Amino acid sequence: MHIVDIRETSVPLQGDIANALVNFSEHTVSLVAVESDVIRNGRAVTGIAFNSIGRFAQPGLLRERFIPRIMACKPGALLEDDGRAFSASKVHRAAMANEKPGGHGDRAAAVAALELAIWDLNAKLEDEPAYRTIARAAGRLPQVQPIPVYAAGGYYYPGDSLGRLRGELSRARDLGFVDYKIKIGGAPLAQDLQRVEAAVVFAGGGRHVSVDANGRFDLAAALQYADALRPMQLRWLEEMGDPLDYALHAELSRHYPHALATGENLFSTPDTVNLLRFAGLRPGLDILQMDAGLSYGLTEYLQTVAAMEAHGFDRRQLLPHGGHLINLHIVAGLGLGGCEVYPGVFQPFGGYAAGCMVSQGHALPTAAPGFGLEEKPELKEVIAGLLSRAQRGVS
Amino acid sequence: MHIVDIRETSVPLQGDIANALVNFSEHTVSLVAVESDVIRNGRAVTGIAFNSIGRFAQPGLLRERFIPRIMACKPGALLEDDGRAFSASKVHRAAMANEKPGGHGDRAAAVAALELAIWDLNAKLEDEPAYRTIARAAGRLPQVQPIPVYAAGGYYYPGDSLGRLRGELSRARDLGFVDYKIKIGGAPLAQDLQRVEAAVVFAGGGRHVSVDANGRFDLAAALQYADALRPMQLRWLEEMGDPLDYALHAELSRHYPHALATGENLFSTPDTVNLLRFAGLRPGLDILQMDAGLSYGLTEYLQTVAAMEAHGFDRRQLLPHGGHLINLHIVAGLGLGGCEVYPGVFQPFGGYAAGCMVSQGHALPTAAPGFGLEEKPELKEVIAGLLSRAQRGVS
Repeated sequence: MHIVDIRETSVPLQGDIANALVNFSEHTVSLVAVESDVIRNGRAVTGIAFNSIGRFAQPGLLRERFIPRIMACKPGALLEDDGRAFSASKVHRAAMANEKPGGHGDRAAAVAALELAIWDLNAKLEDEPAYRTIARAAGRLPQVQPIPVYAAGGYYYPGDSLGRLRGELSRARDLGFVDYKIKIGGAPLAQDLQRVEAAVVFAGGGRHVSVDANGRFDLAAALQYADALRPMQLRWLEEMGDPLDYALHAELSRHYPHALATGENLFSTPDTVNLLRFAGLRPGLDILQMDAGLSYGLTEYLQTVAAMEAHGFDRRQLLPHGGHLINLHIVAGLGLGGCEVYPGVFQPFGGYAAGCMVSQGHALPTAAPGFGLEEKPELKEVIAGLLSRAQRGVS
Repeated sequence: MHIVDIRETSVPLQGDIANALVNFSEHTVSLVAVESDVIRNGRAVTGIAFNSIGRFAQPGLLRERFIPRIMACKPGALLEDDGRAFSASKVHRAAMANEKPGGHGDRAAAVAALELAIWDLNAKLEDEPAYRTIARAAGRLPQVQPIPVYAAGGYYYPGDSLGRLRGELSRARDLGFVDYKIKIGGAPLAQDLQRVEAAVVFAGGGRHVSVDANGRFDLAAALQYADALRPMQLRWLEEMGDPLDYALHAELSRHYPHALATGENLFSTPDTVNLLRFAGLRPGLDILQMDAGLSYGLTEYLQTVAAMEAHGFDRRQLLPHGGHLINLHIVAGLGLGGCEVYPGVFQPFGGYAAGCMVSQGHALPTAAPGFGLEEKPELKEVIAGLLSRAQRGVS
């Protein structure tokens, strides 16, 4: 059993939205297909994955370094010792050959797309949903409970208004959500407070609303917003300062008694360990949001989860960034605390397949093999466009 | 005055050497040329730079994100307010549009190559060596003293021996060096100690020899090496642990009384600030080695130097990684503590032009305009191959 071909394509995200720092209209995602030599029903069994949402596709890094290194491996070198599955950790190691320590940025997303495709491939070889493969590899029971999900959104739009925000929240409620996250920091404080208050009123209390500053604030602004927001007892305040400013987060956590969240812009276990050591995060209270799809994939993510637990955090305090099917399976397989969803935005990758959403703010992966990306209508065409004739079963 | 064209090419490093972690035979460097519309002597004045040594070229990131963003700027938008020079900080800001915080890795090297080319371009427009342009921008006198340089090397070679190492050191001495750095961690401790002792005997004392583990050790191994090396009172121990493991460095600095060095694998001001806050480095003793060519260029490097000084460090404690002409000019322009050189390796980028080396372990930039890369014989051909007809003055 070996890897026959690896294809990749860059897919633009749809939408014209912005958070406090960036406009997403030029953001792209790398979709990859790892083709095995196993033929089933006339088609090559192929692992499909992508490098999460919110940064950039990595066609250059994939073609220059990571795909060639994997394709240069000898047959068998990338299999588990029993030869029955591909080894995600060996693929990770092969991709990272001759890479130096430190500098966990774009390359972490490029490697993640490839590594995650191995999990999709292994699950398809077992003809099971990926959360089962992931759970087994992590030594957990491959059972799944409905997963708490919340609707992330509340971006700043051209010609924005409270009416538009209420309409967005209302559409999310119609889809079954009860918890919501909206952006702050892209407007003056008074205007942001109006937005948050509207969301709290709509949602029926601060415990259903979290806010996300996308790392925009310095310490003074973070403390000012925290003071202003404190009476609302929000679900959490997210990325109030630069993701690497651990001292800011430590100071904020001394000052603000309710939950803080951060971690989505840390792309390695060493970076997360620094967050755990130096940022004053509180076990049992604060939320971590590292995203495997931006952080070298699941091999390293398992080490990140272990580091969290070694520092006294419960894995249910981990709610990964990136509202898409891959993270839904990872949350289900690892027993994490929940998952975000971006209803209607970041297409074609954002959100789940129709069969996943259940009522009252919970979702469940379907029984489709792998991550089930092929079930998502918005993704069907881009996946079909990426696949080779062998992968599509066309002779 | 505006930017007419930006070209880039990937240049492989020559040599078959390895440190404790990586083999350099597949490492590459991005050489870039930023062409202005200013014509002098029939040639377009063109800034040339590269993204330092030791990681990878970034053709994908340059073409996908950073060059298009700069080329999309309106004429005049990238000039200083007086219109007489290009603005490196505006070029940096334009390149980083829609980039999120955190994740300082490959992109930091891609942006650095472009940003540094602006300094070469500005210096050529002023018809002066780049260290003068840099000094003026930093509010310093554009004078230059001979700069302490040391010979970095002592890599592990196939079929290595103490004789080969002594031969290498001897060739470096013949070039005028008195201080040396060799690798550790790529062989068992006993064998490494023999290598270090041979170097100390050759150099005439531990104060002339530093050692570099390239981030390989865990805490136990770092402490073991530090104990074994302590009697030699070496110039410094470099990158004893993972570059992001600030707790390891803090523990090591409590344990080891002589100088430690680190920082070459931190690629942003926020990462350096964490090092300064959490790694227990000692003002007046330890050495920092951040490299502008891997860290977004000089605009951000000036912030990094300011952060060092705000934490009580003297800028002479900064000896940048990357032994090449660009860093020689940066060290000269900013008054840093010195510079490394790799005699004979990492060609065509490593080392200086023939006119730079002076006796007794010091070097000086020549009076060539810009970074003077065109003076380095090994670089002449690759630069010529990159330039357009307008840049070469061929009509």
